Amino acid sequence: MIGYLGPSGTFSQLAAIEYTKEKKEALKEFPTIYALIQAVESGCIDSAIVPIENSIEGSVNVTLDTLAFDVDLFIIDEYVLKITQNLLVKPGASQNDIKTIISHPQGIGQCSKMLNRDFPDAEIVFAASTAEAGKTVAEGDKSTAVIASENCAKLYGLDILMPDCSDERNNFTRFVIISKKQCTKVTEQDKTSIVFTLDDKPGSLYRALSHFEKSEINLLKIQSRPLKKELGKYIFFVDIEGNIDNPTIYFALDALKASTSFYKFLGSYKRQL
Amino acid sequence: MIGYLGPSGTFSQLAAIEYTKEKKEALKEFPTIYALIQAVESGCIDSAIVPIENSIEGSVNVTLDTLAFDVDLFIIDEYVLKITQNLLVKPGASQNDIKTIISHPQGIGQCSKMLNRDFPDAEIVFAASTAEAGKTVAEGDKSTAVIASENCAKLYGLDILMPDCSDERNNFTRFVIISKKQCTKVTEQDKTSIVFTLDDKPGSLYRALSHFEKSEINLLKIQSRPLKKELGKYIFFVDIEGNIDNPTIYFALDALKASTSFYKFLGSYKRQL
Repeated sequence: MIGYLGPSGTFSQLAAIEYTKEKKEALKEFPTIYALIQAVESGCIDSAIVPIENSIEGSVNVTLDTLAFDVDLFIIDEYVLKITQNLLVKPGASQNDIKTIISHPQGIGQCSKMLNRDFPDAEIVFAASTAEAGKTVAEGDKSTAVIASENCAKLYGLDILMPDCSDERNNFTRFVIISKKQCTKVTEQDKTSIVFTLDDKPGSLYRALSHFEKSEINLLKIQSRPLKKELGKYIFFVDIEGNIDNPTIYFALDALKASTSFYKFLGSYKRQL
Repeated sequence: MIGYLGPSGTFSQLAAIEYTKEKKEALKEFPTIYALIQAVESGCIDSAIVPIENSIEGSVNVTLDTLAFDVDLFIIDEYVLKITQNLLVKPGASQNDIKTIISHPQGIGQCSKMLNRDFPDAEIVFAASTAEAGKTVAEGDKSTAVIASENCAKLYGLDILMPDCSDERNNFTRFVIISKKQCTKVTEQDKTSIVFTLDDKPGSLYRALSHFEKSEINLLKIQSRPLKKELGKYIFFVDIEGNIDNPTIYFALDALKASTSFYKFLGSYKRQL
């Protein structure tokens, strides 16, 4: 059974449906990302599909932080979903009727330029999910619009006032599939994810990256997040090309690990990106 | 005149009041961070105090992205504010009455463990600011609580049900002061902020950081954000120790600049952190 972030009509549900299309695995909905990841940790579900990064709004903090600090799980796969945001309204409403726009903070962030340009006076309201925002609009009057998927329009009987209204055409969300057991399948196009902290010494990040440079390992992503204990202290999430099964990768990570104050291997898996 | 993110009762207002205490500068409230920064760009206000980073929730994306992509402004100073979040309720309400908890996403994020532990069944609602959330609670019944400042409790006549309820004791927000003219004052404890993109080649970040390593320049922070054009492409915000007035810093940045595809100097200013 694979868990996803609900309710019905979210992009997470869409990703879960598309990802499991040929796998015939049962799906289970969870109300928050934290609850979803904890359900894997407790063994309530086998795995979960969790949003980790959007091409406009960036990292999904709660996913990164929960994987680093709160659970011992592995990333076993990834899935990239094209996101098409739309401005949805009650049937018959026009642009002039709109006084309030409601969506998940990611939906608002992905359309912030459009909102500043076309709705400078509208009140912006955040919701727990795009789908929940759609429900609110369906239950209200014509003055409220929602930024959500086409699927959400169908689900709640809304009209599409502005199709594909993201600030950038390239709007994609990368999901990771997490599980208690790591992925052992090796392919020609794998990536490896780790998370670590470094001693607060000049050049420590440079020296950490030197282990990849020496072994000609390609860095795909580096993302810092607060260590939470003190302002100005960070934890680093790093994705590199290759599988830990490859001795070059294995020894480079082993050398890196020796220079960290905290280190966690998050998994090697097939890259879509 | 210095602008800040309103309405009354936000931590941004508190930071603005404390920062200007001895400066006797007039304050002006803005409804969004984007509008606030654009008001400096258009010359409507001289400067703005803008949140850029919290010790638990991390970077404030809209601040970073607007400074990188949308305006040509400088950071001229920084200010660190201790954040004390509290769970506020209507007078007489108790923990058992609470069905809904409302706050700014940063407030929710800073208290997410407490919420999962003490209010696992409560509905979480996001608001545009902690102060607006406080107003909503004041106008509703006893079933809704807000995560906000003590000041917000006073402003809207709310009771403090749980004082200092952040997940970590060290809850600080760093604000930057931005202006059209760069800061030219040099002190013994300055930092310099830049933002750049690199060619998508193996080792490009390592080589970029080598300019700091060679000159023994201390890296204080590195934060990646999506380039927004394509998933997997990033822009880097970097803070280093020292002032660009120092030739070592100047030449290291000049060398770094030559290896970037986009580069912007954001300012040298006195560090509080």
